Amino acid sequence: MFRATIDTNILQSSIKAMSALIDETIMVIDANGATSRAVDAANAAMATMSIPSTQFSTLDATETQLGLDLVKLSSILGMASKSSYTTLSIDEDTHKLNVLFDGFSYTLSLLDPTNMRKPPSVPELDLPAEITIEGTVFKQMVKAASMAGDNMRMGVHGNSFFMESTGTEDNVRMDLSESELIGLKSADVSSLFSLGYLTDASKAISSASEVVIKLGRDLPVIIEFEPSADCPVVYVLAPRITDD
Amino acid sequence: MFRATIDTNILQSSIKAMSALIDETIMVIDANGATSRAVDAANAAMATMSIPSTQFSTLDATETQLGLDLVKLSSILGMASKSSYTTLSIDEDTHKLNVLFDGFSYTLSLLDPTNMRKPPSVPELDLPAEITIEGTVFKQMVKAASMAGDNMRMGVHGNSFFMESTGTEDNVRMDLSESELIGLKSADVSSLFSLGYLTDASKAISSASEVVIKLGRDLPVIIEFEPSADCPVVYVLAPRITDD
Amino acid sequence: MFRATIDTNILQSSIKAMSALIDETIMVIDANGATSRAVDAANAAMATMSIPSTQFSTLDATETQLGLDLVKLSSILGMASKSSYTTLSIDEDTHKLNVLFDGFSYTLSLLDPTNMRKPPSVPELDLPAEITIEGTVFKQMVKAASMAGDNMRMGVHGNSFFMESTGTEDNVRMDLSESELIGLKSADVSSLFSLGYLTDASKAISSASEVVIKLGRDLPVIIEFEPSADCPVVYVLAPRITDD
Repeated sequence: MFRATIDTNILQSSIKAMSALIDETIMVIDANGATSRAVDAANAAMATMSIPSTQFSTLDATETQLGLDLVKLSSILGMASKSSYTTLSIDEDTHKLNVLFDGFSYTLSLLDPTNMRKPPSVPELDLPAEITIEGTVFKQMVKAASMAGDNMRMGVHGNSFFMESTGTEDNVRMDLSESELIGLKSADVSSLFSLGYLTDASKAISSASEVVIKLGRDLPVIIEFEPSADCPVVYVLAPRITDD
Repeated sequence: MFRATIDTNILQSSIKAMSALIDETIMVIDANGATSRAVDAANAAMATMSIPSTQFSTLDATETQLGLDLVKLSSILGMASKSSYTTLSIDEDTHKLNVLFDGFSYTLSLLDPTNMRKPPSVPELDLPAEITIEGTVFKQMVKAASMAGDNMRMGVHGNSFFMESTGTEDNVRMDLSESELIGLKSADVSSLFSLGYLTDASKAISSASEVVIKLGRDLPVIIEFEPSADCPVVYVLAPRITDD
Repeated sequence: MFRATIDTNILQSSIKAMSALIDETIMVIDANGATSRAVDAANAAMATMSIPSTQFSTLDATETQLGLDLVKLSSILGMASKSSYTTLSIDEDTHKLNVLFDGFSYTLSLLDPTNMRKPPSVPELDLPAEITIEGTVFKQMVKAASMAGDNMRMGVHGNSFFMESTGTEDNVRMDLSESELIGLKSADVSSLFSLGYLTDASKAISSASEVVIKLGRDLPVIIEFEPSADCPVVYVLAPRITDD
């Protein structure tokens, strides 16, 4: 059983951040708030989100698992007017999700969590380099890299963060020295990532004032940001080993 | 014979309101102004428009019937600059329509009214419920309904206007109490309509400050609004009997 | 050898003006600046551009020929932030073009000028009529003409500049008297041009405050404008003889 009311912008920004990489997820709602973790179909990207109870206007919940179609929920929340509030609840009889805002009452069928893939836990990774930049810079980097190749190498060299993308004909590289970054924990490592995933990720990241990128040597990257205050989202993207 | 000059915005808003539902129509121009009435190819939607002589800057006309391709005329008027005036006349030799604005002179071939379908008169209907809302609310309702199903039920229950759309999985409903409406003549009736037609209709309706919706029990709906002042447009949409 | 730095907007506006009609070109850079001239694949359109040395922030060049993919270069320059500066240089080892702005370093493969079509010189033409109008008026004319036919006749009749487009059903004409033009050198001539080329040309021309159109009797048109100050671009478009 649960009933929760929340600023629609907060809910929508977390849902959109998940849906940038993931189509379906199990959301767990309890007295502490809402959390979700899922991997994409290709097993190459993981996303987690968390909205603590403090970000809800009202939250009355015993633990409930919701099997969500993120694309559908995001497009429905996109109908809401600015500065509206959304109330979520479960219809106990039909086991459908009620979504209320602006006088509209949506009743959405849910996916059955028992039929859905169990999300693995976030892997323990030794990622010695840590870079903090603005979300808009991350998006610009990814867009620039896409002009040259299909993959983007991110790494740290001395006191600089760099990205590089090598195509069959063209090449693009960017170096940002420590003074151009919000923060840097230095370590000479780099890894290669698919620009397809990075482009999807950058859509949600671009509006974040800060994004933390944790890198190792040919290891997955962990990307942390808050689409709205105190609502952390974490992406984990698998590395590519060779650039083809 | 006729020659008429009119604020392009007035002419264009009436033409666009017709073209939301109708491709071709016969426009009748005489000393009283311009009127048109047509049904769509599937015989499920009717639109009428009227621009009284008072809305013309100059109007010098004996009764003339123009067979209009509404899509073509609307896209040509869309070329005009804001606050321009358009002069319409018939070339007596070629029987083509001259359209003048912004120094451009268009000569458009007309459809032959004798080959066009004669529009039926607006049906006499017993529609006891009458709801007045803002055009933007109508558009929002139709858009919300499209998230769930293919049809939308509109009706009055007690002192509330409601819409409901039921899909195979999801459902959406909105209730607006009398205090949330501009006006309400109450009667417990409802009818079901195709969201395809309602979506087309809502494009022209959304900019109207007021739209009047007249409803009966499983009867056509009459929707009245003014795309520009004193230029009434009326839509009549056939009901659907079952929701499939 | 060369190394040049230039306001990105100046470089981009000249490159975009070329790429409106041309896919690939040889750009010649020397101490006097950068120039380029090319014809399109169908041999029906020629474009030339010139950026004098005074428009560069720094220019250190012995004569260099660059075989450019204009579409690729234009989309890369489109990534630059407003009011950025771009530095161009050749990598002597790889013979690739280095493009630097906003901290990004692009390395682009060049086309081999020896394999590219040698551009003919601009033809000597007797074009007695010369019309000067705003770029936005030119674009509006071309757009209006496209509503009727596939070709547009431009000419001068007495003290008026006119355009006319005749389709199978419709026709559009515009006359601009001398007082509505920025300048007019009168001569009773006209020529017919493909709206496909004129539409492409109008995209770059529309932002120019002045465009000079030089017309003869069934001869190519020469269109001159400056996408940025002191950086002339010239288009030459072949005439069409019959309107089909």
